Amino acid sequence: MKKLINDPRAVVGEMLEGLVSLHPGLALLEGEAVVMRSDLPADPAARQVAVLSGGGSGHEPAHAGYVGPGMLHAAVAGDVFTSPSTDSVLAAIRAVAGPAGALLVVKNYTGDRLNFGLAAELARSEGIPTEIVIVSDDVSLRDTVEPSRRRGIAGTVLVHKVAGAASASGASLAQVAREAAAAASALGTMGVGLGACTVPAAGRPGFTLGEDEMELGLGIHGEQGVRRVPLQPANVLTDTLLSAIVDDQRLGAGDRVVLLINGLGGTPAQELAIIARRALAFLRERGITVERAWSGEFLTALEMPGCSLSLMKVDDERLHRLDAATSAPAWPGSGRFAPARRIAPARPVAHASDATESRPADMEPVHQALLAIADAFDAAETRLTELDGAAGDGDLGISLVRGAAAIRALPPSSWTSPSRALMALSEALRRAIGGSSGPFYATALLRASRRLADHPQPDARAWAEAFQAGVEAVAELGGAGPGDRTMIDALRPAADIFFRELQAGGTPAEAWAEALLAAERGAEATARMKPRLGRASYLGERALGLPDAGAEAVVVWLRALSRFIR
Amino acid sequence: MKKLINDPRAVVGEMLEGLVSLHPGLALLEGEAVVMRSDLPADPAARQVAVLSGGGSGHEPAHAGYVGPGMLHAAVAGDVFTSPSTDSVLAAIRAVAGPAGALLVVKNYTGDRLNFGLAAELARSEGIPTEIVIVSDDVSLRDTVEPSRRRGIAGTVLVHKVAGAASASGASLAQVAREAAAAASALGTMGVGLGACTVPAAGRPGFTLGEDEMELGLGIHGEQGVRRVPLQPANVLTDTLLSAIVDDQRLGAGDRVVLLINGLGGTPAQELAIIARRALAFLRERGITVERAWSGEFLTALEMPGCSLSLMKVDDERLHRLDAATSAPAWPGSGRFAPARRIAPARPVAHASDATESRPADMEPVHQALLAIADAFDAAETRLTELDGAAGDGDLGISLVRGAAAIRALPPSSWTSPSRALMALSEALRRAIGGSSGPFYATALLRASRRLADHPQPDARAWAEAFQAGVEAVAELGGAGPGDRTMIDALRPAADIFFRELQAGGTPAEAWAEALLAAERGAEATARMKPRLGRASYLGERALGLPDAGAEAVVVWLRALSRFIR
Repeated sequence: MKKLINDPRAVVGEMLEGLVSLHPGLALLEGEAVVMRSDLPADPAARQVAVLSGGGSGHEPAHAGYVGPGMLHAAVAGDVFTSPSTDSVLAAIRAVAGPAGALLVVKNYTGDRLNFGLAAELARSEGIPTEIVIVSDDVSLRDTVEPSRRRGIAGTVLVHKVAGAASASGASLAQVAREAAAAASALGTMGVGLGACTVPAAGRPGFTLGEDEMELGLGIHGEQGVRRVPLQPANVLTDTLLSAIVDDQRLGAGDRVVLLINGLGGTPAQELAIIARRALAFLRERGITVERAWSGEFLTALEMPGCSLSLMKVDDERLHRLDAATSAPAWPGSGRFAPARRIAPARPVAHASDATESRPADMEPVHQALLAIADAFDAAETRLTELDGAAGDGDLGISLVRGAAAIRALPPSSWTSPSRALMALSEALRRAIGGSSGPFYATALLRASRRLADHPQPDARAWAEAFQAGVEAVAELGGAGPGDRTMIDALRPAADIFFRELQAGGTPAEAWAEALLAAERGAEATARMKPRLGRASYLGERALGLPDAGAEAVVVWLRALSRFIR
Repeated sequence: MKKLINDPRAVVGEMLEGLVSLHPGLALLEGEAVVMRSDLPADPAARQVAVLSGGGSGHEPAHAGYVGPGMLHAAVAGDVFTSPSTDSVLAAIRAVAGPAGALLVVKNYTGDRLNFGLAAELARSEGIPTEIVIVSDDVSLRDTVEPSRRRGIAGTVLVHKVAGAASASGASLAQVAREAAAAASALGTMGVGLGACTVPAAGRPGFTLGEDEMELGLGIHGEQGVRRVPLQPANVLTDTLLSAIVDDQRLGAGDRVVLLINGLGGTPAQELAIIARRALAFLRERGITVERAWSGEFLTALEMPGCSLSLMKVDDERLHRLDAATSAPAWPGSGRFAPARRIAPARPVAHASDATESRPADMEPVHQALLAIADAFDAAETRLTELDGAAGDGDLGISLVRGAAAIRALPPSSWTSPSRALMALSEALRRAIGGSSGPFYATALLRASRRLADHPQPDARAWAEAFQAGVEAVAELGGAGPGDRTMIDALRPAADIFFRELQAGGTPAEAWAEALLAAERGAEATARMKPRLGRASYLGERALGLPDAGAEAVVVWLRALSRFIR
């Protein structure tokens, strides 16, 4: 058994302490496993009808999570999957009820019936008017037992809500009990389990299921279901569960219901959402109006994988109770919903650079320079594949060959300005190159393009600033700094030195020669660096000895550009 | 793999449809796995700074659950544990941002950095000011990698909240980004896993753990942690996790933090509450002020068992952002908490019957009658044990012998009125008898006692009414009717016939004789009934042939009473 607990015997007490610590509206009843509202009037005569529930633990957030104004006044917790004692229930009634009386909402299990029932009788003997409503919503047993003998499961939470709201409205005990009983009888639930759960005190799962099996009609105590069937697709299963409830409750077109989708603990929210999607569609197809729907974990079975669906028939009055405000921590809110809304994508905004192309530049040198890069990438394929294969995923050579083809395929509209050319190249490389090189080059080119947007005929200094901006974009994107064995180790010194040499009065050709030298040295140096980013970082020292492929690729295209820098 | 899905490839799309169906504040961006607010102004110029996040799916309720006023404007979903594409992110930015710009909150993974980063660059090129905040809160990697290289995990949700609240307050993009970045750098998270999870498309768990092992520093993609250690008690583990964060973030006495306790998907709320209890105590012991605390599932890893703890340092301004209103479906509310409150139990109210004991009755016959029942129970032990052993748990004989001892031990204060005597007997049997017979007899006696409360010297008719009331209480408590093979099959005819014979003018002794006969016949008839309630119901037809032990026990005490009815 693997559980985040301290001691199987202390689970319930420690859990309730943690829960009450997190929620100021809750309090512990001293000496009992009872969570109650912390804000009740000290004078019992000032209290409204108290609504209590409870049962074995292991169903969290039930039942303590439903304690709060507008819902339960107290929840009585037994050990995991074990009814609380009569004395605990009685202590809870005494603590929260007054002359207005108490309603106990009890799930239909022998232990709970006996202990809550006897406690109710004791409370009556002490002069506290007490009523009981038994919830038996499990329709899985509909073929074998009478309705009154069914188990109480997740739908019980909806009965808590109806009763709590009726009490909060100032209704009498008789009225609260009447509404709760009517809600309970208008309720059906059907569950499915994909596996068992482990009770802390037992230490092992209650049963096992085959790899392709599930249990229809599973209970909430790790007990087995009524039918073991092959695993079904979520949509088929959802239809099976809802059909059982719809048949049992004789629901049909025109009926109004609320829907509760309850995860049993071990089923991801992802799967519950898939169930919700189909459940809403199924009910729509049947002409049944779903007034409210909730999906989440409401009454669980520890970490059991599986879920249950509940439908409760509603009229305006009952819906009003379900809609009433409550601050109980686990009540999931309004449950109002609507068919999935779809919004059409926004069209791209016009490129910022479009505005500045009043004077077409001589773009032929730029075009020729890019074609030279394409040729250089083709020529370097074997070498780059070899380097990348030694310390990466080996796809850089072929990626840049794809990039070369994309360069050659750039449309004529690319050659209206340097800024536009770089942007077109960015888009072409983004679409042509997978892995991480595509996003890196695409981002750098975009950043450089924006820097050139105001320069229809950029001079060397403008190109140098654009180069630096592009390098900065690569550094931001990957988070790499010098010495991390990435393309930055070639790019950064090249961009910095090109800019500095120009500032110092060098010609563009001289400055570029220095920049290329710096890039070559930077790339060489990567052979002595341990990779710290990306897939290569898992190799650690094993990558030593060969330069980084990304840095080498930088040298390839910088060198190809040399004869175009004048 | 056992999952409630239809098709591994359709999981994300169907999940998002389900989610959006359930929450009217959300909408799907047509053609993209993007969930966005449904209430944004159509005119981009009227929009506030857009806050976006996202990443691979499988972390539900993240990220779509945090979309809503006051939190995210859109969430971009990739496949399970896979970064969304650049184009999806860009489409989301276009759909929700305007001239005020967009902030992307990105967890520190290569794929997310590249795709969100390139999309940001593209958005900037389209004239949408866009900033990125990288969250890297995982302190488990603190010994091996620089802070900027850590993974982003559950604490990211708090950064969403800070950024979303800043945007909703009307702050500029620069201000929203500054607050988000500051929040991210004031944040540390440390997790533990007790097992792996299964990616739908992979179909099997990513790793296995021994029965007594857990992984410290587990990530949120089923990846392994930084250290495999033996399973620890929850308190020890909590201290380990928090110590790592406190050390890393250099937190100490006087610092103010918020605490996020995040279940990874497969850990029951019960266990998270136990962790919460210790976490609050640990921080209190260190003198660190916890301003807000939340416990639940915020950023999961499918159904992985385990949890993470996050601490974020706060000042008044950041706390104000965390407290600001949001209607994002998965934001857990205020997080205000207080040490566990304990309320002293209410004292029992004075018994209603106490008031009516002005005239002591002659109680000796009642006392003698009960002693006769005690003797009869002793004498019937073997027979009742045998009957109960055949179709129940076999404890009825010894239970009633315990009841006999309890009768003999009734204190002298019991013998002041019939009502008081029955109440004292109820309490004695409730404490002495386990199983279900204790609650049944205790409840029946209480109900009868209340019926006699106004009769200090009850006549035969008053006794008959009390008998009927007690039988009615048993029926209510267990839900049994005639023919269910329970004590009701003896009790109900006896009570009814005793009352009817008295009404018809019979003497009490005559009426009782008829009642006893009816009970005997009823008990005999149970031998031909299939059990339908309680443990015996599992036997079905195998219980046929012998009478029900509970019904036989009724005959035993009815017969013992015969000579006291005059």
